[in-house]
Amino acid sequence: MQRALNVDRSRFADWYQAVVRDADMAETSPVRGAMVIKPWGYGVWEQLQQELDRRIKATGHENCYFPMFIPLSFIAKEAEHVDGFAKEMAVVTHHRLKNIDGKLVPDPAAQLEEPLVVRPTSETIIGDAFSRWVRSHRDLPLLINQWANVVRWEMRPRLFLRTTEFLWQEGHTAHASQEEAVEETMKMLEVYRSFAEDWLALPVIAGEKPENERFPGAEATYSIEAMMQDGKALQAGTSHFLGTLFAEAQNIKFQDDVGTLTFCNTTSWGVSTRLIGGVIMTHGDDDGLRLPPAIAPRQIVVVPMLRDKPEDAEVLAYCESLVAALSGLSVFGQPLRALLDTKKIKSAEKRWNWVRRGAPLILEIGPRDAAGGNVTFMRRDSLRDGDKVKSIACSRAEFLEEKAVQLLAEIQHGLYAEAKARLDANIISGVTDWAGVEAYFSGDEDAFKGWLKVSWSRPSGAELDAVEQKLKGLKLTIRNAPLSQPDSFAPCLFTGKPGVEEILIGRAY
Amino acid sequence: MQRALNVDRSRFADWYQAVVRDADMAETSPVRGAMVIKPWGYGVWEQLQQELDRRIKATGHENCYFPMFIPLSFIAKEAEHVDGFAKEMAVVTHHRLKNIDGKLVPDPAAQLEEPLVVRPTSETIIGDAFSRWVRSHRDLPLLINQWANVVRWEMRPRLFLRTTEFLWQEGHTAHASQEEAVEETMKMLEVYRSFAEDWLALPVIAGEKPENERFPGAEATYSIEAMMQDGKALQAGTSHFLGTLFAEAQNIKFQDDVGTLTFCNTTSWGVSTRLIGGVIMTHGDDDGLRLPPAIAPRQIVVVPMLRDKPEDAEVLAYCESLVAALSGLSVFGQPLRALLDTKKIKSAEKRWNWVRRGAPLILEIGPRDAAGGNVTFMRRDSLRDGDKVKSIACSRAEFLEEKAVQLLAEIQHGLYAEAKARLDANIISGVTDWAGVEAYFSGDEDAFKGWLKVSWSRPSGAELDAVEQKLKGLKLTIRNAPLSQPDSFAPCLFTGKPGVEEILIGRAY
Repeated sequence: MQRALNVDRSRFADWYQAVVRDADMAETSPVRGAMVIKPWGYGVWEQLQQELDRRIKATGHENCYFPMFIPLSFIAKEAEHVDGFAKEMAVVTHHRLKNIDGKLVPDPAAQLEEPLVVRPTSETIIGDAFSRWVRSHRDLPLLINQWANVVRWEMRPRLFLRTTEFLWQEGHTAHASQEEAVEETMKMLEVYRSFAEDWLALPVIAGEKPENERFPGAEATYSIEAMMQDGKALQAGTSHFLGTLFAEAQNIKFQDDVGTLTFCNTTSWGVSTRLIGGVIMTHGDDDGLRLPPAIAPRQIVVVPMLRDKPEDAEVLAYCESLVAALSGLSVFGQPLRALLDTKKIKSAEKRWNWVRRGAPLILEIGPRDAAGGNVTFMRRDSLRDGDKVKSIACSRAEFLEEKAVQLLAEIQHGLYAEAKARLDANIISGVTDWAGVEAYFSGDEDAFKGWLKVSWSRPSGAELDAVEQKLKGLKLTIRNAPLSQPDSFAPCLFTGKPGVEEILIGRAY
Repeated sequence: MQRALNVDRSRFADWYQAVVRDADMAETSPVRGAMVIKPWGYGVWEQLQQELDRRIKATGHENCYFPMFIPLSFIAKEAEHVDGFAKEMAVVTHHRLKNIDGKLVPDPAAQLEEPLVVRPTSETIIGDAFSRWVRSHRDLPLLINQWANVVRWEMRPRLFLRTTEFLWQEGHTAHASQEEAVEETMKMLEVYRSFAEDWLALPVIAGEKPENERFPGAEATYSIEAMMQDGKALQAGTSHFLGTLFAEAQNIKFQDDVGTLTFCNTTSWGVSTRLIGGVIMTHGDDDGLRLPPAIAPRQIVVVPMLRDKPEDAEVLAYCESLVAALSGLSVFGQPLRALLDTKKIKSAEKRWNWVRRGAPLILEIGPRDAAGGNVTFMRRDSLRDGDKVKSIACSRAEFLEEKAVQLLAEIQHGLYAEAKARLDANIISGVTDWAGVEAYFSGDEDAFKGWLKVSWSRPSGAELDAVEQKLKGLKLTIRNAPLSQPDSFAPCLFTGKPGVEEILIGRAY
């Protein structure tokens, strides 16, 4: 069978690269580890950003912008307070270039007194502002978000999933009490869960990360975890309850109503362009990307079947009027996004471009459609009937008045349902001892395994380290302890002690 | 008279700082020259960005994202091609920190083989992508934009106007012919002009920069210039026709329809957070900021007059219903942005906060308004009657059905008209010799002078250098040669040769 990609999902890593490339999402750049996000990929980011921004604002947060350079002294101070602080950061040491002996180099006379670090995350610089902004309990809660680029030096970069520079949002909040900060942490976790599921059609498990996977310095870290089509987990968003540790390091204090100075409880939470990698690995198929209509930059693409003949003008006029009518419709609470593809390339090439890019509905309109007042369309979610591409015809009126919006909603729900069924079917319970884990994850490392749900005693410290090492031997990690837990537990698979919690273990990105 | 600021426009620089601070727009940060944009300031940026983005897309451009790090070799290559290339840039030299003798420092073992420059602008890295993306004439025009942060080391930073890091959009396009590239350059200049005038209520003069003020390497640079309330010019946006120089340096070639390889003509154009400084210095008054309603994050703010009495509940309910009704209205083609200020501070403090921030309409609602079904409002554009603040009452129904939208449109037009009258009245013609220029700009450097419109012979090279030096002695620069020119010209004020063009000269930010 002829596919739109030259590699299928059986070679998952190669397939992923092919989709990112052939769907025009992104490409590598001359800067090691940093990507160029191309118009179609950036269009997905814009859709995602717009809706998440709306949800972040609807929960009372305001956007700001903080400097991307952080004085080294700020980082040093945090490193003192926090174990396990990652040190792979881009460091700015000079503020001028100079031509020396015909070569452009950092000007030795322009070395900074204090090096600047390009933000890997902004707790320190935002905390510094918070320490100035918070005076009294009336200034609380302080609920701030920013959309920004961040840099973490990556040794094994992968487009969207792990890049040296990436785009994200980072929320930072300060509260008068621990209860309020915990409530905020859980509220934003729920914002991420519902956004991922409703908008990206990405079913996820929300839960708490184990101690060893916490954000350095956090009292608790929560995540949403999605299952990719190779059975691996992708951490798709995190929400951290930071307690008072960061407030103490940064002197974020408020005067309560009886005048006592108290440290704030703070939180932080973020999602990034990594989500796009998750969308690709969840919804893509052997013909390329399939985009959930809610985030497709173009939900309906109209390809006019032109033949350099006089009737072309009629076909074009018919298509233009169709796109205008579609653009007047509303779907998912927003104007429908339709495009007429007028590029000067062959229609067949256009069809396959849009198939690879995952446009939810592709219309091919020829002279017969124009003359008969019809529309011929392909659904990207169910492109084929056996080997053949499935084209469906209906009247223009039916398509405009009913089908267009209905099909987009159907595709959105269908993609979610398909991924949800896969997630549910591949969280495996019933393994109760380590030998069972070994047996389950033995053999081909790239084979589809999904995740095991096992009971544990929530070990800490050295006991947890031992668990981590054991799992590492099988390239496994603990993903999270799902928020929804049973009433009773089997004994801990690792320690044999009474179980207190179920956790998910699996391979991950 | 009691004013909301403790300094007035007679001390313009201090006044500007006070507005930025007291309107909660931005503040300095611990990183020299980099600012923190606070929620109200960032809200203005979001409004501005949303509308300009819409206009950039409506003219056929697509958004992308390119790495913010540029390999030094790219910059070196450009520096070879381009005279006057600025070298004040942030240079990343290390990718890891290390604790050495108890001190966190750049890890000597993690020095980059090739330093990376934080983008001051992205011609080089985007040109590199263009050289891969453009193959045939069918790939042209290539119309790309990005919203990004950029860094230019500033020795004398000033919030919004000149900061080491700032936010901007940069458009980059490639075309098959010089005509098309010039057309694009002028089209984007017009997008900037109309956006500044319609949306920011900022009257501007669009025109061509003289040779000595061109973007290094450009064949022509155009700008929009706005006049601040101290009579100085602010360059508010630029559009560059780059010819084939950048395409040659970066090997951006296409095969035309007969198979010949030809260099593209390219353009670039940008506006930045500097525009916000322009809005402040154009529309602010001695009580603080006055925001054009089109970009006010909140167009109508409702302040409930609460007295810790039982009737507070009724007032609050009345205000809530009012804000809900206002939010259902539409103005400037978008939902009206209304806010109920429920902060736990005194009503008077709230009033003055919103006056300083420049919310276009401020409503103060007390028990009598609630009981009588009335609304009491202040217009920020004409706040006072003599010394007194002017409160106007009308019925809730009238305000909702008529006044609210009508007043916002009126304020938008009024702010524009006021600034336009100032601009028009202060472009002075009739000075024909250098002595006249000296006389006009003599005396107090900070006195309001506006601009002179003079005729010149469009000197080049050394002759132009001489003009530049002469002007520099009076702290003057040539702003631009307006697009609209008369039919005939007086002799050149500088050279005595026949005049060919009128130019604007003045002091500038």
